[in-house]
Amino acid sequence: MKNTFGNNLTVTLFGESHGKAIGAVIDGMPSGVRIDESYIALQMDRRRASSALSTARREADQVQILSGVKDGISTGTPIALMIENTSVRRSDYDDLSDKPRPSHADYSGYVRYRGNGDASGGGHFSGRLTAPLTAAGAICQLMLKEKGISVMTHIASLHGICDRPFDEENLSGDLQILEQAEFPVLDEAAGEKMKQAIREAAADSDSVGGILATAVSGLEAGIGEPWFDSIESMIAHAIFSIPAVKGIEFGEGFGFEKLKGSEANDPFILKDKKIQTLTNHNGGVNGGISNGMPVLFQTAVKPTPSIAKKQKTVDLSEMCETEIEIKGRHDPAIIHRAVPVIDAMTALVLCDLLIARFGCDYFGREKE
Amino acid sequence: MKNTFGNNLTVTLFGESHGKAIGAVIDGMPSGVRIDESYIALQMDRRRASSALSTARREADQVQILSGVKDGISTGTPIALMIENTSVRRSDYDDLSDKPRPSHADYSGYVRYRGNGDASGGGHFSGRLTAPLTAAGAICQLMLKEKGISVMTHIASLHGICDRPFDEENLSGDLQILEQAEFPVLDEAAGEKMKQAIREAAADSDSVGGILATAVSGLEAGIGEPWFDSIESMIAHAIFSIPAVKGIEFGEGFGFEKLKGSEANDPFILKDKKIQTLTNHNGGVNGGISNGMPVLFQTAVKPTPSIAKKQKTVDLSEMCETEIEIKGRHDPAIIHRAVPVIDAMTALVLCDLLIARFGCDYFGREKE
Amino acid sequence: MKNTFGNNLTVTLFGESHGKAIGAVIDGMPSGVRIDESYIALQMDRRRASSALSTARREADQVQILSGVKDGISTGTPIALMIENTSVRRSDYDDLSDKPRPSHADYSGYVRYRGNGDASGGGHFSGRLTAPLTAAGAICQLMLKEKGISVMTHIASLHGICDRPFDEENLSGDLQILEQAEFPVLDEAAGEKMKQAIREAAADSDSVGGILATAVSGLEAGIGEPWFDSIESMIAHAIFSIPAVKGIEFGEGFGFEKLKGSEANDPFILKDKKIQTLTNHNGGVNGGISNGMPVLFQTAVKPTPSIAKKQKTVDLSEMCETEIEIKGRHDPAIIHRAVPVIDAMTALVLCDLLIARFGCDYFGREKE
Amino acid sequence: MKNTFGNNLTVTLFGESHGKAIGAVIDGMPSGVRIDESYIALQMDRRRASSALSTARREADQVQILSGVKDGISTGTPIALMIENTSVRRSDYDDLSDKPRPSHADYSGYVRYRGNGDASGGGHFSGRLTAPLTAAGAICQLMLKEKGISVMTHIASLHGICDRPFDEENLSGDLQILEQAEFPVLDEAAGEKMKQAIREAAADSDSVGGILATAVSGLEAGIGEPWFDSIESMIAHAIFSIPAVKGIEFGEGFGFEKLKGSEANDPFILKDKKIQTLTNHNGGVNGGISNGMPVLFQTAVKPTPSIAKKQKTVDLSEMCETEIEIKGRHDPAIIHRAVPVIDAMTALVLCDLLIARFGCDYFGREKE
Repeated sequence: MKNTFGNNLTVTLFGESHGKAIGAVIDGMPSGVRIDESYIALQMDRRRASSALSTARREADQVQILSGVKDGISTGTPIALMIENTSVRRSDYDDLSDKPRPSHADYSGYVRYRGNGDASGGGHFSGRLTAPLTAAGAICQLMLKEKGISVMTHIASLHGICDRPFDEENLSGDLQILEQAEFPVLDEAAGEKMKQAIREAAADSDSVGGILATAVSGLEAGIGEPWFDSIESMIAHAIFSIPAVKGIEFGEGFGFEKLKGSEANDPFILKDKKIQTLTNHNGGVNGGISNGMPVLFQTAVKPTPSIAKKQKTVDLSEMCETEIEIKGRHDPAIIHRAVPVIDAMTALVLCDLLIARFGCDYFGREKE
Repeated sequence: MKNTFGNNLTVTLFGESHGKAIGAVIDGMPSGVRIDESYIALQMDRRRASSALSTARREADQVQILSGVKDGISTGTPIALMIENTSVRRSDYDDLSDKPRPSHADYSGYVRYRGNGDASGGGHFSGRLTAPLTAAGAICQLMLKEKGISVMTHIASLHGICDRPFDEENLSGDLQILEQAEFPVLDEAAGEKMKQAIREAAADSDSVGGILATAVSGLEAGIGEPWFDSIESMIAHAIFSIPAVKGIEFGEGFGFEKLKGSEANDPFILKDKKIQTLTNHNGGVNGGISNGMPVLFQTAVKPTPSIAKKQKTVDLSEMCETEIEIKGRHDPAIIHRAVPVIDAMTALVLCDLLIARFGCDYFGREKE
Repeated sequence: MKNTFGNNLTVTLFGESHGKAIGAVIDGMPSGVRIDESYIALQMDRRRASSALSTARREADQVQILSGVKDGISTGTPIALMIENTSVRRSDYDDLSDKPRPSHADYSGYVRYRGNGDASGGGHFSGRLTAPLTAAGAICQLMLKEKGISVMTHIASLHGICDRPFDEENLSGDLQILEQAEFPVLDEAAGEKMKQAIREAAADSDSVGGILATAVSGLEAGIGEPWFDSIESMIAHAIFSIPAVKGIEFGEGFGFEKLKGSEANDPFILKDKKIQTLTNHNGGVNGGISNGMPVLFQTAVKPTPSIAKKQKTVDLSEMCETEIEIKGRHDPAIIHRAVPVIDAMTALVLCDLLIARFGCDYFGREKE
Repeated sequence: MKNTFGNNLTVTLFGESHGKAIGAVIDGMPSGVRIDESYIALQMDRRRASSALSTARREADQVQILSGVKDGISTGTPIALMIENTSVRRSDYDDLSDKPRPSHADYSGYVRYRGNGDASGGGHFSGRLTAPLTAAGAICQLMLKEKGISVMTHIASLHGICDRPFDEENLSGDLQILEQAEFPVLDEAAGEKMKQAIREAAADSDSVGGILATAVSGLEAGIGEPWFDSIESMIAHAIFSIPAVKGIEFGEGFGFEKLKGSEANDPFILKDKKIQTLTNHNGGVNGGISNGMPVLFQTAVKPTPSIAKKQKTVDLSEMCETEIEIKGRHDPAIIHRAVPVIDAMTALVLCDLLIARFGCDYFGREKE
């Protein structure tokens, strides 16, 4: 439903880039979950613009919890999260209101809302709205941690530069690396090259994109629903909500095209008396339902459309061709900032599916 | 919601491969839509097993319309579609009930349903349930045709063999080709090679997969919702419901990784006084909302997991490793049969989004 | 959503009075629930036309389970229920298609569906569609029985004739009476008077209505959701779906107008070390959530609008005033037949809310 | 879904009586609707505590619009409304946290949320959360006014004192009276008696309830959905969300028990060449769908459970019987304050159903 996502655990998103505030409401929240605000702040930090790589705009991104938490514990009723917009320079954008920026939502949103939309800085379509999603997802990650489930994401490749793949035998090790990394890669050297590529794109008034790889460890078998609420359908739905995402694949994904069935199938084996698969080409999901192996997927993130180069566009009021130069503050790459957002949306989906199966009392605990 | 998909126009799916009947209920159906049963039958034919390429199982797949249509016109109340299962050889599958087939839903479904599931032939997870989806989608395609919107899909590549891409300047020509094609490719010669590859896989008791490309022509700008009900989120959700789908990308998708922002952006231009984009790297969608250009996406389909080769698995009752040979009837490739299913699910999403914007009276007409 | 109701456990309804078949799909069904078909048949019998009191139309109402049940146990995937329409005399109704019957859905449905609706015998609006709802509800009642929860309904009053009220101290006794009663009253003598009143109305080509009282025993405290998915909101939503229902009240309901707060409040007490309330004016619900006391509500059912007397109406094609005489088969009272439908819809809501709280594995069990 | 209501136009509610803020998010909002903040403020005033009749607590109830409105016009993206809690005296309530107040949600909420809920002043269950609902509903009423649809409510009776009924021939006159009334009655003399009864209850540390009557004028025929989203189901669902509501009836409602079919049916007639009904016993709804006549319903509101008299309850930590005296601020009657809340929820349902039929562009307009 438009700005609400989820079945049992839902998140409702609101706000515009240059409005008073942005935020999210989490409903279906289990009671008795410890809400560690420092963990939320940590995820917000990961999403925030950092150093030379990112936009000069620095929002404090102070997440206010308006409801649903008492003495650091979830009450079970809706958690409303709000972030006030404090660093708004609307003037940077105002002259663009009639000149839609290429590959942004300016034009499609203009038609959708019959010219009434708030286009400044992307308005409701702004990547800035991933901030409350990240906060909401951080709360979901706190729930997953209760159950020993971890979600982790790294930049698998950026404009041709590749990180090493996840070590599926040691995902807890990779998780540790990523939790401490200032830049979300497993191989620091690869990360340095990526950062260099980002700086070069910036110097050229251009931008770059890449591919993110995500792993979920600790998810038991039997989670997900057949057909429309499969893990893959739900995660894909959630991930495509994130601006600049243009593709998702599970397991081998598009690489399956090169494999035969006999190469692609994952035989079942017993390991420590538990059922596992010998390989994990299917990324931990069979028939839309988890099989107990790590859930693996990759996400394609396009280059940031906001570039400083002069671009062609159309003047909507004059209905003539024209050019724009996007001033304002923008990122030569957003892919590293998308990492905690991917983690957040994935955590939200997993909590939702776990609650569908086990009920809302599955997470949290009775008050002592 | 599990077996119901859509917001304003919904489809609810039911049935098992070897049960009495399979079917779907369409709700939110506009009144006054001409329901051309021969068009539904045509789509069912496209989905059905054909010739040497596909399984020997031949269901008549006779779609019965139980409700919601009077004198060939939709009444506006739910259309229930039912297909009786007439050609069921349950014995082929029964000995497998304790031996989950690799990369099928047998094991994950076993855990999900606590051993109570009907596993014969995949049960509720069977690809056979795409038959009622195809019928429901055919009805949606009839609605889209009223408005000049077409959905078309071809096999872009199959195990390394590529079809020519869509001609975006002449999608109506490509549509004609695909409507008449016995095998869903644009270049007949490529199709012959693909069929040969399928036959070779079959001869080797193996299977192959590939990539499907889909185009939507005639969709106006401004359709789709921000964030969670974007065209991309909704189509991805729907497409991942189809068994064997493991990836989806819009426009350049994973190829964006190779492009810089200045190469990836689609500048707005005026053409015949209408706003268009010079290129269409974004596949007709900006910010989740249509921009008036053709909507383009590609779907990764894994090789059919049912292969005749002996495979490793685990015996669930004995909890020991064992092997299986899948007898029964199965396809060396299902990708060509997935084509009408992709079209169907895409049509369903588009009708749903159009109704969200324009209401349920947008389609169909008043009785004369 | 139009013809789908419920959040976690949903029912989707389809069919028309005079079409091929009517039915319902239950989704979100727990796996491992014993599906006792004779119990379903029993509820269908209670709903069916009986003796001189009800319409001469006698449908076999044979419920076919098309999917979701294997060897008498729910699989966890959708249960599709279908009842074929075998006793259709469309001619009785056809001449009325342009002359809407007063207080039926004929005219409002005509406008809603732009003249395309199937009006014969009420079409999709027909009370006949309560048959699949009753079957679906019977399955829910089987689940509730697993947990010691019972739903029971009697005719509290019919055109001025009153039954004795529930004995809240002995609801299991009242349940026994109602399970064995041919006519759903607690006091047989009152029942005889009611039947006499129905016969008199019939003799006068007229009809009567009344008030049903429902009790739920065995429901623990803490079930229901705040605000929009309160027990009261959900039950009211479900009950108003039943044709001819025009009112619902919980506990004292409209009688609260006569009470002061000090008379209306239900003090908490301890009884057998358990928290109860001394009185139950609130009908077992506080703040929308169960408090452990019996849930009590009353439903107003209007007189059947189908009467044999000549009535004024408008001819829709000629747009002039005219008269109709409704031939066909109709009931002088449907209130006794509404009893199992009320029980069914109530059971559906309770299962839905219990699954929301405790998950779908709360009901049913693992396969042995 | 718990704290979200509606299908196409939804409202999501958050907050606790004594938390930082309460609020609501409206999604599915049409673009181009003029948002008159003074009209919202007017509805807030009607809901707020007034004079000697109501609680001494006086919230400024300043509604902040955080998003979705630009230059007084709706953008089409979510409108978030927030009201900060400024007048919180938590101490009045804190000693009650273990002693549930009779007929409040304290105990049922305690069980529902496993002791983690915020019980102060009712927490999330507090009637205070009707403030953001009223604000959201005011926005819906602005939309309905665009289309000539009015919702109006008066106190039909209060502890035995009756107002005159609506004049169905002159609802616009009654609307005028109610818009200007300080106390929501049609007959001022009756209102004085009611106020006297409220003052007497207050003097006696007691409270009173009553019955509200609502009329909707100007709604065309054909609005509503069959079965589960009927006007009656949707309005009942919404109205039962309001604290203290214990009953609802449409048209004659429970009074139908006294009528025969021939007396209860509403014959169709032609009046000024338009189809109407001669009587309106069915309250403007047939088969769940509007028939063009005024929609009429009545709501039962129980006496405020917060009374100053000493009451029995149970101490949850000691598990022993005890007594409480509710201090804090409370109302001897809330029925007059419920009036704008009823109007608000009704307006929300009507907008939702109109958008379902006609799309979200039905309301509002293109930017000039």
